[in-house]
Amino acid sequence: MKFEITILGSGSSLPTVERNSTAQFIECNNRYILIDCGEGTQIQLRRFKVKFQKLDIILISHLHGDHYFGLPGLISSMHLLGRDKPLKIVGPKELENLIRPLIEIGGHHLNFDLIFISLDYPANQIVFDDKKVEITCFPLKHRIPTHGYLISEKNTGFKLNKPAFDLHKLRLTDIPKIKNGEDILAPNGAHIPNHELILVPRQVKKYAFCSDTKFTETILPFIQSVDLLYHEATFINEHLSRAKQTFHTTAAQAGQIANAANVKCLLIGHFSPRYKTMDTHKIEAKRFFNNVMLAEDGLMMKI
Amino acid sequence: MKFEITILGSGSSLPTVERNSTAQFIECNNRYILIDCGEGTQIQLRRFKVKFQKLDIILISHLHGDHYFGLPGLISSMHLLGRDKPLKIVGPKELENLIRPLIEIGGHHLNFDLIFISLDYPANQIVFDDKKVEITCFPLKHRIPTHGYLISEKNTGFKLNKPAFDLHKLRLTDIPKIKNGEDILAPNGAHIPNHELILVPRQVKKYAFCSDTKFTETILPFIQSVDLLYHEATFINEHLSRAKQTFHTTAAQAGQIANAANVKCLLIGHFSPRYKTMDTHKIEAKRFFNNVMLAEDGLMMKI
Repeated sequence: MKFEITILGSGSSLPTVERNSTAQFIECNNRYILIDCGEGTQIQLRRFKVKFQKLDIILISHLHGDHYFGLPGLISSMHLLGRDKPLKIVGPKELENLIRPLIEIGGHHLNFDLIFISLDYPANQIVFDDKKVEITCFPLKHRIPTHGYLISEKNTGFKLNKPAFDLHKLRLTDIPKIKNGEDILAPNGAHIPNHELILVPRQVKKYAFCSDTKFTETILPFIQSVDLLYHEATFINEHLSRAKQTFHTTAAQAGQIANAANVKCLLIGHFSPRYKTMDTHKIEAKRFFNNVMLAEDGLMMKI
Repeated sequence: MKFEITILGSGSSLPTVERNSTAQFIECNNRYILIDCGEGTQIQLRRFKVKFQKLDIILISHLHGDHYFGLPGLISSMHLLGRDKPLKIVGPKELENLIRPLIEIGGHHLNFDLIFISLDYPANQIVFDDKKVEITCFPLKHRIPTHGYLISEKNTGFKLNKPAFDLHKLRLTDIPKIKNGEDILAPNGAHIPNHELILVPRQVKKYAFCSDTKFTETILPFIQSVDLLYHEATFINEHLSRAKQTFHTTAAQAGQIANAANVKCLLIGHFSPRYKTMDTHKIEAKRFFNNVMLAEDGLMMKI
């Protein structure tokens, strides 16, 4: 099962030639997800060879332009390239009324359905759920209503414990019941608990996305023990007061969150363009959490 | 007097890594003009080292996304970088109501005035006029209301014919009258015609922008004899029927327009991404007009 993140934009509100505005492409169990869609995201998708017609769902964190100004252009290009598969877009409730007029004024009648899923802030709810993937949103704390997202692969693997099945001489007709979680009565009258008849599934993997937010421990329950945590780290300690003022996080604070949430790996990004290198971000985050990666445009990570 | 065009985007409705959506930066007599603002224009401005805070005015040709989806991001970045100088935006009358909500929802209260100048189609009117530059719009023929723009430098040079002034022993108090176009009565009673007292001004230079449009000779009066004509040439002859269907122009037709308008140089662009090279465009345009240039991102031309 593939679970892979591609960073399309690692910059913040002022995009640069090196760091585009926020966008991430996630492939999880054959589900194709875009989180945020800053201006230029369609070009970044092309640059990093992501087939954007595959996208099933787009998750928008909040309505600062560096997180969604690329949406109308991406939708238009999908239309021009002949998409007919519906596209789900999750985001703040105002999003639909901002985007639809931009598409309609151009005279395009989309060949595909745009399905907006509106979030009221603060929300902690499932926004996508099928047999392969579950996505939930949770509230962050920024200047305007903002949500993070948690993407969890699902255990698609029902695996029969064949030796136990044979030992108790069970029948093929028992299999749907076992799959359904039921205990089984064996031909010899023995009661066989369900858990003896299935193999213990491997742990499902999880990715959490948190941008933009001030430092807040209220997010800990939502991101506990994830395999990969993306957390914004716009500033370094030297600019802590600026971080507080703008409801952003320092790298050290992101490290503290990763440590408190007991995650496996921390990926930081959304860097202010004032920094030429992010070495200090890494050093400061590592004071609190050892396994830190720096986001950059084009970075691909397997979970 | 500087008159320079920088191509920021030479592509069409589907931007690629090589060719961004339409945008051009024009410096004319210390006036700084952006024509169209496709998605990613702010990044292109950075890439080609144009200081975008200098911009005085933005001219939008029409409301297909590849010509204005970069506008909200550029405005936001201008705000974040501390702009306080007003910004004029000329475009279709619906533009303001599409753009303002995108800025306002983010909670930004702009530090500068956005002054929208609305065009009703078809319009042929002056949209900017000061002592250095005049800009007029004129109607093109596309699927939705679209305007081209003509940028003309002004003759800032009132130049006194000093030898004639001295010869007739005129007074300093005569200069404002000469500047004002009046004839002068010399101290010896002679009547001196105004044209003898000023140096003949050099010809003013002109740039015309025509994108997007089907082939139409109705634009000829507006672009007659310009120094540089930018005309879209989305397609080659092989795709003439597609050009007609989509209200675009072929390279050959752009050559015919340049020839009929007796311009000095033709610059073609807005190329469909289906073409790997534009060699055929150039060959086909040159059948009708000799002095043809191909637009590409980053191309700078002096007029």
